[in-house]
Amino acid sequence: MGGVLDGLPSRVKIDPESVQAFVDRRRPGVDPHTSPRRESDRVELLSGISRDGLTLGSPIGFIIRNTDTRSQDYQEVFRPNHADYTYYKKYGIHEFAGGGRASARETVNWVVAGALCREWLKTMGIEVSAYFEECNSVEEAMQKGDSTGGIVHGVINGLPVGIGEPVFDKLHARLGYAMMSIPAAKGFDIGFGAGMASMFGSEVMDVMNPDGTFRSNYSGGVLGGISNGMPVEFSVFFKPTSSIMQPRPGVTPDGKPCVIPPKGRHDPCVAIRAVPVVEALAWLVIADLVRMR
Amino acid sequence: MGGVLDGLPSRVKIDPESVQAFVDRRRPGVDPHTSPRRESDRVELLSGISRDGLTLGSPIGFIIRNTDTRSQDYQEVFRPNHADYTYYKKYGIHEFAGGGRASARETVNWVVAGALCREWLKTMGIEVSAYFEECNSVEEAMQKGDSTGGIVHGVINGLPVGIGEPVFDKLHARLGYAMMSIPAAKGFDIGFGAGMASMFGSEVMDVMNPDGTFRSNYSGGVLGGISNGMPVEFSVFFKPTSSIMQPRPGVTPDGKPCVIPPKGRHDPCVAIRAVPVVEALAWLVIADLVRMR
Amino acid sequence: MGGVLDGLPSRVKIDPESVQAFVDRRRPGVDPHTSPRRESDRVELLSGISRDGLTLGSPIGFIIRNTDTRSQDYQEVFRPNHADYTYYKKYGIHEFAGGGRASARETVNWVVAGALCREWLKTMGIEVSAYFEECNSVEEAMQKGDSTGGIVHGVINGLPVGIGEPVFDKLHARLGYAMMSIPAAKGFDIGFGAGMASMFGSEVMDVMNPDGTFRSNYSGGVLGGISNGMPVEFSVFFKPTSSIMQPRPGVTPDGKPCVIPPKGRHDPCVAIRAVPVVEALAWLVIADLVRMR
Amino acid sequence: MGGVLDGLPSRVKIDPESVQAFVDRRRPGVDPHTSPRRESDRVELLSGISRDGLTLGSPIGFIIRNTDTRSQDYQEVFRPNHADYTYYKKYGIHEFAGGGRASARETVNWVVAGALCREWLKTMGIEVSAYFEECNSVEEAMQKGDSTGGIVHGVINGLPVGIGEPVFDKLHARLGYAMMSIPAAKGFDIGFGAGMASMFGSEVMDVMNPDGTFRSNYSGGVLGGISNGMPVEFSVFFKPTSSIMQPRPGVTPDGKPCVIPPKGRHDPCVAIRAVPVVEALAWLVIADLVRMR
Repeated sequence: MGGVLDGLPSRVKIDPESVQAFVDRRRPGVDPHTSPRRESDRVELLSGISRDGLTLGSPIGFIIRNTDTRSQDYQEVFRPNHADYTYYKKYGIHEFAGGGRASARETVNWVVAGALCREWLKTMGIEVSAYFEECNSVEEAMQKGDSTGGIVHGVINGLPVGIGEPVFDKLHARLGYAMMSIPAAKGFDIGFGAGMASMFGSEVMDVMNPDGTFRSNYSGGVLGGISNGMPVEFSVFFKPTSSIMQPRPGVTPDGKPCVIPPKGRHDPCVAIRAVPVVEALAWLVIADLVRMR
Repeated sequence: MGGVLDGLPSRVKIDPESVQAFVDRRRPGVDPHTSPRRESDRVELLSGISRDGLTLGSPIGFIIRNTDTRSQDYQEVFRPNHADYTYYKKYGIHEFAGGGRASARETVNWVVAGALCREWLKTMGIEVSAYFEECNSVEEAMQKGDSTGGIVHGVINGLPVGIGEPVFDKLHARLGYAMMSIPAAKGFDIGFGAGMASMFGSEVMDVMNPDGTFRSNYSGGVLGGISNGMPVEFSVFFKPTSSIMQPRPGVTPDGKPCVIPPKGRHDPCVAIRAVPVVEALAWLVIADLVRMR
Repeated sequence: MGGVLDGLPSRVKIDPESVQAFVDRRRPGVDPHTSPRRESDRVELLSGISRDGLTLGSPIGFIIRNTDTRSQDYQEVFRPNHADYTYYKKYGIHEFAGGGRASARETVNWVVAGALCREWLKTMGIEVSAYFEECNSVEEAMQKGDSTGGIVHGVINGLPVGIGEPVFDKLHARLGYAMMSIPAAKGFDIGFGAGMASMFGSEVMDVMNPDGTFRSNYSGGVLGGISNGMPVEFSVFFKPTSSIMQPRPGVTPDGKPCVIPPKGRHDPCVAIRAVPVVEALAWLVIADLVRMR
Repeated sequence: MGGVLDGLPSRVKIDPESVQAFVDRRRPGVDPHTSPRRESDRVELLSGISRDGLTLGSPIGFIIRNTDTRSQDYQEVFRPNHADYTYYKKYGIHEFAGGGRASARETVNWVVAGALCREWLKTMGIEVSAYFEECNSVEEAMQKGDSTGGIVHGVINGLPVGIGEPVFDKLHARLGYAMMSIPAAKGFDIGFGAGMASMFGSEVMDVMNPDGTFRSNYSGGVLGGISNGMPVEFSVFFKPTSSIMQPRPGVTPDGKPCVIPPKGRHDPCVAIRAVPVVEALAWLVIADLVRMR
């Protein structure tokens, strides 16, 4: 894996250990519910940083070497709720090593990029945090060889007023776009979100104080696409892991139904490992919008 | 209002009456619940179309003249749940004629652009439709001088397999981005959406038939960001109209609390008029992704 | 004609008369050598400017109504050195009203946009000027019913050090890109330009003074793609007007040779009218790069 | 060094040896006049290619490890005609290892990317070649410890009619932009180029044959920004290498004049090594425009 981050200003102090620590949070095995694959996500920063650890203002290239890809676990079959079929139809090519670009492994690049943006933005007093909300019992799903969905809530604190553009780069639209790009994300809310649809206008008024703060935060820190100084609160809704430890019906590329036996290594709830991915993407979105200001 | 649409192929037959009819659906007064402002949204197509009504492959410029802007209805005060405050802080300028770019009026441009894309895409057998779901009684909210939220559901039929990009331009991420750009949108779901978070993997498997169709559509027509040939189903959740016919607390630009008297003309439920906007944005997103294929 | 300029900061004072005066310089008839078509280029600014003439930070839409298009002057034939043939092959459509998008008339939009950028940048002490250098006698070419090429030299003064990006948005690469987009432009030089190819390194050294100025300016104000505080000097080389007042050999769309009789209205030297276009594009390029800084 | 190429279609056969051979042409030492630094430019392709050598349609990441950077040859001083000063003013940071991003070494990435595009485009019968034209004697410059400029001419054969966009992505404007991005490039011509400025219209008419070919090619294969089926011919003019083997006047970052002693390793004529860079950029520009078609 690897990528290039462009756009950081020069003279930002990058602490490689802080970047690595952020990236390590995505690793499986950190949480007892997550996949036992022992991926080593050691980040090599290749360019864009001076000998004394300051950004040069040029692109930061990085790679993360794969150390444990057992591609033989993946077969030439269209698995339910996987992108095997759509990839095959779009690209006309099979390459199932680790699930290809639809693999959640792809997101490690985003986490590195987010970690680098964080080094910059935290110096402005901005902080991002995300946490997992359990909807069904993950342990129970695990024991049944099943999987379950989940919610990740994110909060951005310390964002100044005025971040986000009024029409085509609204803060919450950019956040939603980023979050819906995470594999398995199926829904996005800003502030009170979908719940607003069944409320009355008189109930959800975020009354402003004369000092520019607000008495409530139904809006989730955004008005007209632009940050209003309150915490930016959002939620991302994840579907259950598509691969489960039960036999599943599949179709072969030549159109034959088949049964996919339960094997491989799978997180029972992808939302858990998505927490640092959600944070990383929020850092990236803010970095873009702060630069655009 | 006005804008420029670039990217349509040449030799697409544009029927100006069909475009106008699509745009007219956004007009207030079409639905008895919507604002009584009598905006005339006559579309003038200025460029990019030949004398015999075919696209030239060049940008299509258009304008819609405002005929009824009573800007004296708008005051210099930060209204609750409006973008007045964030705009002021971002741009340092007051210009409240019609609510500025935060006004839903801005969306008429998008509707024109979507109507033009529709002229092209419908020749491929693609169809988009959206409809309003009432959560609270709109009549009741209206009578109380209150407002209410609502849901708009969208469906894209006839989309071939393979539309959407696998990582950064996922079909549902682009749809979500577009929909979250609509004023008052607070949540977005693709397929079963947020409901997936509380499901088990074994419950939401869209089992594939050997002919490439699927027995269910929890995924909403998208796998790994790419259309799978099933209807693309999504939902957009709208907050209640921020302006209501009751006195509301506001703050003046110099930091003094004030009371905003109930006046002006407001839809009791913005979601109703958002229906053609949702359709238009879906047409635009598909046009982009079909071109990108 | 018309367009949309996005990206100006808010609170820039726009003087519509200054904009109009800049645009009027492109009009034919200002110089005795230029085409006698009496085009009226009255600019209507449609959006993005407040009642007291300040930019709102939102897109500035504008139109210039055509008042004198005699499309019957144009015929269905591929003229030599015109884009008729390539347009036809690319778009499969004939629409020769005024030469289509290959017409120099297209550039009026760029001049309006450049004039708007100028209103902003001149407040920073930046100034752009361009002038025409005659290579052949324009009067002589005119009398023979012929046309001639010419050179436009441009100078940007007052640009601070540090404008331009080091790799993919070099100041002179962006300038060159813009200038080569002008109809009939065939060559571009920065600084001493093509002449540098036959010089020795010891001859063209711009020796720096301790105060950061330079003793010479072979480099044309750019080092490594970034402005160095010296005047940015460049040249644009234009081919002769393709249409001349002599019979010319053409080909019809069905592949028959034909003779094109000398009619229509044509500048004997397009480079003369390109002067304000060159200035306008320089203003646009600088505006982009200053925003990017 | 390294980079990411996105946008190649899937199922393009990539021959790594062909890519490496293309990249090796940029290496110094291939031509007796070029710098004796023994850079090893071994390309590692990291992603985007299947086990059987076909593109996956996903980004192709690559790196080229530096094996010989003697950064001690570079000093903290602003050298004449180098970007040291402008980089320092823009980024506020010193990092002179190998000249930073202003180093011609940066271009190895472009050559790899161009080599990959070539693998695709050559299957369509497109061919690009460039060659060096000597203006002064390179041997003579070398013996005097001096350097000299030079010209690189490029030709694109086999390009179908219709490549390039009519206004903002003209084929020759994109070519010019790319070529002016090469370190030391100071001028660009399409077709007869700057020479057109002193010609009469009657002299440079590319008369069309009924079969769609042209009797001459003053236009350089482009009409109105769009390829016309003739060879696309262009020239890039390079300044002399800025570093020469003679003492040169410099300025230190704290504003003191100094003399830079002649050391280091420098090509006497950068244009020679630019030949494969010119070809690579032409491949990249065509790839972009063919995708855009």
